[in-house]
Amino acid sequence: MTDRSTPPTAADVDAAAARLKGVAIRTPLITSPVLDAVTGARVFLKPETLQRTGSFKFRGAYNRLVQIPPELRAAGVVACSSGNHAQGVAAAARMLGMPATIVMPSDAPAMKRQRTRDLGAEVVEYDRATEDRDAIANAIAGPRGAIFVPPYDDPDVMAGQGTVGLEIAQDLAALGFAPDIVSANVSGGGLISGIGLAVKRAFPAARVVAAEPEGFDDHARSFRSGTRERNAAPSGSFCDALLAPTPGILTFQVSSRLVGEGATASDAEVAQAVGFAFRELKLVVEPGGAVALAALLNGRLDAKGKTVVIVLSGGNVDPDTFNACMRA
Amino acid sequence: MTDRSTPPTAADVDAAAARLKGVAIRTPLITSPVLDAVTGARVFLKPETLQRTGSFKFRGAYNRLVQIPPELRAAGVVACSSGNHAQGVAAAARMLGMPATIVMPSDAPAMKRQRTRDLGAEVVEYDRATEDRDAIANAIAGPRGAIFVPPYDDPDVMAGQGTVGLEIAQDLAALGFAPDIVSANVSGGGLISGIGLAVKRAFPAARVVAAEPEGFDDHARSFRSGTRERNAAPSGSFCDALLAPTPGILTFQVSSRLVGEGATASDAEVAQAVGFAFRELKLVVEPGGAVALAALLNGRLDAKGKTVVIVLSGGNVDPDTFNACMRA
Repeated sequence: MTDRSTPPTAADVDAAAARLKGVAIRTPLITSPVLDAVTGARVFLKPETLQRTGSFKFRGAYNRLVQIPPELRAAGVVACSSGNHAQGVAAAARMLGMPATIVMPSDAPAMKRQRTRDLGAEVVEYDRATEDRDAIANAIAGPRGAIFVPPYDDPDVMAGQGTVGLEIAQDLAALGFAPDIVSANVSGGGLISGIGLAVKRAFPAARVVAAEPEGFDDHARSFRSGTRERNAAPSGSFCDALLAPTPGILTFQVSSRLVGEGATASDAEVAQAVGFAFRELKLVVEPGGAVALAALLNGRLDAKGKTVVIVLSGGNVDPDTFNACMRA
Repeated sequence: MTDRSTPPTAADVDAAAARLKGVAIRTPLITSPVLDAVTGARVFLKPETLQRTGSFKFRGAYNRLVQIPPELRAAGVVACSSGNHAQGVAAAARMLGMPATIVMPSDAPAMKRQRTRDLGAEVVEYDRATEDRDAIANAIAGPRGAIFVPPYDDPDVMAGQGTVGLEIAQDLAALGFAPDIVSANVSGGGLISGIGLAVKRAFPAARVVAAEPEGFDDHARSFRSGTRERNAAPSGSFCDALLAPTPGILTFQVSSRLVGEGATASDAEVAQAVGFAFRELKLVVEPGGAVALAALLNGRLDAKGKTVVIVLSGGNVDPDTFNACMRA
């Protein structure tokens, strides 16, 4: 039984990888001569866009849900999410035969709401400005005895996301490379702290960099101050997936130790990165999945001459948004 | 020195693979639980969209150009292409320090013309309805002593494209799978005949299927009649990359023996397949790169219960076209 008040270790990431084997997609590392040429770096992309449900979130959700004892599964799960954790939980729940209810903001991208419903979940919408999503989730979960699945501040969720880092470390080592920099997009910090566990164990000298939207750089500021800082605004970023107000308690225990630095990109730079991915990489990346790429393309990672891994964390983007980015 | 009047063998594909090692991207095989669910098949995608220049065409072009003796390189190369062979030749020529001139129809997608110029090639536009592209190419190549690089009917070009099939065969074998069906999009037949050479050597029982746009099914009709049939119209397909009027002479010598069957998809089905790739696969595929996928999605490959490989041959698509497909 997992102690939910303690962050996971690299060994927990290994255990998560065993649970996810044959269930999650083992996404490849992709290279692009054009990207190498424009950045002067040796870049490997980890396209979690190709993961089940179109983002890395399936990994953590499944690693949490599969450990729920059979006798507790019928009561189902409840989660709050603007869309990617929603789909991850919905997909994992369906595979395990569990009912899932997802509390989603009414301004979440239409595609994310629809895809969550298509995965068989009940979607409860709320107004981000006036309603408290946790209160709604608790009111749903309590009477049913359903289990609440946090989007990041949970050791099993973090360990599941960490398998992204484990695969990066294994595949790079097999290719004979050691990463100088590994950067992923950050909201609550589940992915980046999981990556930190796996990557720093294999490559202690690697820099793990939290990529955040401008104005939502709570991790970078928290690393500098040593305490969990909050973003000024609860919403308003182009990166709808990266709106967590502050680093998680458990995630920050890991990330403050193993990550420790951030990089930002503006909305315009993120849109251009999504357009670059369309034109040059032929990959569909959502804004929140392209911040690390944008930081790299705009010289914020000190990447020249280095071996760099960029995680493209999600690809669930509405046609209207993607259409605008294609021309950015 | 290659005999240009004889089609290549599987051994020539092996030799091409050795020349392309470390130069071309070895594209991964990608799986999608959603695609498996909607088709009832075990599907592996070969995304040549991730290849250098955004299509498989780089493979054949480089395999041809790298065999040009150093003393002949300064005179450069000339090619005719609506866009993907253009970029493949331009990229290979740049890597080998050769000048390249590409004769392109004025109605080729703007992105393809621009990307060919960006790769350093001189682009000469012509009117598809009133001008003869071969005459223009010869008039350019003759005085310069430049070498003409055919888009498909050349043993080195065919062998280069065949490395797509070689990688499919090797990677599937490593995963413990044998393909029942391998399908790729077909214009002049260089890719499908090269795939036939490599795949049928490894898996003699596999069906290799030529995917063609409706109304441009010259290969399927040629397979049935045993002679090289022509398309009724020289243009008018949504699939701008697949407008060759008839199978190549050399390619048909191979494909009539190793391919032997076709499948078609309508323009509307191709647009929907591009939209499916956007929504579910998170891959940018151009119309001509999505015909085999469209044939699969519309039940034309008799794929249920089978192991199927679909080649996504290119991803060079204008934003306007992609925008329309995202909503198809």
